Amino acid sequence: MLRTQGTIRLPRRLLLLACPVLSLALVAASPPGAAGGNRAEVVLTRPGGVEYAIAIHGGAGVIPKSLPEAEKQEYLHALEAALRLGQGVLDAGGSSLDAVEKVVRALEDDPKFNAGKGAVYTRDGRHEMDAAIMSGRDLACGAVAGVSTVRNPISLARLVMERTPHVLLAGAGAERFADEMKVPREPASYFDTPKRYREWQEFLEKERRKSARPGETHGTVGAVALDRHGDLAAATSTGGTTGKLSGRIGDSPIVGAGTYADNRTCAISATGAGEEFIRHGVARDISALMEYGGLTLAQAADKVIHGKLKPGDGGVIGVAHDGSIALVFNSQGMFRGAADSSGRFEVRIWE
Amino acid sequence: MLRTQGTIRLPRRLLLLACPVLSLALVAASPPGAAGGNRAEVVLTRPGGVEYAIAIHGGAGVIPKSLPEAEKQEYLHALEAALRLGQGVLDAGGSSLDAVEKVVRALEDDPKFNAGKGAVYTRDGRHEMDAAIMSGRDLACGAVAGVSTVRNPISLARLVMERTPHVLLAGAGAERFADEMKVPREPASYFDTPKRYREWQEFLEKERRKSARPGETHGTVGAVALDRHGDLAAATSTGGTTGKLSGRIGDSPIVGAGTYADNRTCAISATGAGEEFIRHGVARDISALMEYGGLTLAQAADKVIHGKLKPGDGGVIGVAHDGSIALVFNSQGMFRGAADSSGRFEVRIWE
Repeated sequence: MLRTQGTIRLPRRLLLLACPVLSLALVAASPPGAAGGNRAEVVLTRPGGVEYAIAIHGGAGVIPKSLPEAEKQEYLHALEAALRLGQGVLDAGGSSLDAVEKVVRALEDDPKFNAGKGAVYTRDGRHEMDAAIMSGRDLACGAVAGVSTVRNPISLARLVMERTPHVLLAGAGAERFADEMKVPREPASYFDTPKRYREWQEFLEKERRKSARPGETHGTVGAVALDRHGDLAAATSTGGTTGKLSGRIGDSPIVGAGTYADNRTCAISATGAGEEFIRHGVARDISALMEYGGLTLAQAADKVIHGKLKPGDGGVIGVAHDGSIALVFNSQGMFRGAADSSGRFEVRIWE
Repeated sequence: MLRTQGTIRLPRRLLLLACPVLSLALVAASPPGAAGGNRAEVVLTRPGGVEYAIAIHGGAGVIPKSLPEAEKQEYLHALEAALRLGQGVLDAGGSSLDAVEKVVRALEDDPKFNAGKGAVYTRDGRHEMDAAIMSGRDLACGAVAGVSTVRNPISLARLVMERTPHVLLAGAGAERFADEMKVPREPASYFDTPKRYREWQEFLEKERRKSARPGETHGTVGAVALDRHGDLAAATSTGGTTGKLSGRIGDSPIVGAGTYADNRTCAISATGAGEEFIRHGVARDISALMEYGGLTLAQAADKVIHGKLKPGDGGVIGVAHDGSIALVFNSQGMFRGAADSSGRFEVRIWE
């Protein structure tokens, strides 16, 4: 039995032996044939739970293990820096909403991730970005879709939540709202990066050969957190999928699909094949399995990611009301990190 | 005990006496203080169930009982005609998808309802329409948001489902997709109606007096159906809320919020205060209560509409996999209708 500060981590097999009731639930939550990808970590928090917890992601998908070491280190350093930002807010007693917004802004500003600077190209060579933020305390939420000049879409989403009676603003209307709110704007060239340009050119070349499908290149950034006040929050931001049709909205800004937070259950941010996450209502489904099915966050996330989605579709990060963390994906890898008040601090790419 | 063709309808109190287990669930699903509005009808279908079933709505909200008799009859006749269209498709063995699309097209074409012709005005005097359609057999879905020239947004939503890899297209991108699909288009004047124009002017006047809130005038049209093949489908279309900000997307085109269909549970179309329906993920929540909580459609719809939403927020129509129908709202009225293969055929406005 491993024991780290404040957290008891049990290998899954040991846990199954130790607790027949829980193991039954875990087995029930494990669909046949769902091999591959990463099972939720089963983390038992100490009685009383941790005081705060945070998880972040920088997208799931095909991430070859042949990734050059220097590039791998760049990703891990970026994740670590973003995670420390969020942890700093929470450790100082700040709100989970502030923590997840701050983390997502940092990842939006980093050209390596598909959100803000570094967003992928649409089929016709534009950047159209989506983002959502949600507060678990009161189910307040705000989102933007198809913005192309806003430096930090996640902060515009928060303004939709706080300054309008609406939840989701899209396209030209969202841009006009950005004018009114006077948020920082950028020309299209700011969002351009050579890597995403190459991916767009490859998409167009495949399209000419009739083998292209939008969605082969995707990625998202997100954060979920529990603060010292017991409030959960979730935030997600993305450039969408390379080669998407102009006007396409993915799961990230759809409350219940790519983003959800409810203090009674959990906060979730998803990344992957957006249309699949919308049709399954992934984030809300995990929350519902906890609320109505009596599953833990880890069991619920496993059931949805490995039992309902197809291998390769993507993954989620989640924090439950008790501070437990789930990092679950059925793709080759997921850029991710997790930290809590017990001293846990980790960033990873593959299993 | 009333007995109509193929359907046994029990007054709720009688049912409580007759079945202690079900009554326990019904009581549990009835939150305190949720008086007013309309409880789900408890319809027990014959063993084997009905062969097809359909429910439609034309919006929920403040519908004064002082509505002039002639106007009331116009609404009832329009609902009846739309319901017969859908029933005709189902009776002839057509698909639930075809039935709900046909019903919603008819209601979009009718200037009395807030969808297609007769759509409300945005704050700056435009018509921006949203629609979604979903197939319960395979969770296929399509939606459009913020279209302003498309005569029948529901049919464009179906084309998104059938002809693109995407689920949701918005704004200028959706208009461009409409160009490619060559669907019928209309000038802005086609969607104008004197009644909606007056509501917009009243909104602007209230805004000058600082008392306006978008959302006071809303409405939606929708249909849900079970066909003879056992497939469920849902469709919803709306002009949104009078005075909404340009770019605002409500719950109707959000899969899981205003529209959902899953053959394992039910098909749902919602109408009301869209932002509330998004944050609660109403349509998906009803499905989850059936899937994980073991509730019937009627119990699940009651729990969400009367237990989670605020009085006045609106309502839903639903058809379950067994052909049972729920028409539930917490507002003053809901334009609605229901029919099935047992001979049930009804249209109503108030309780």
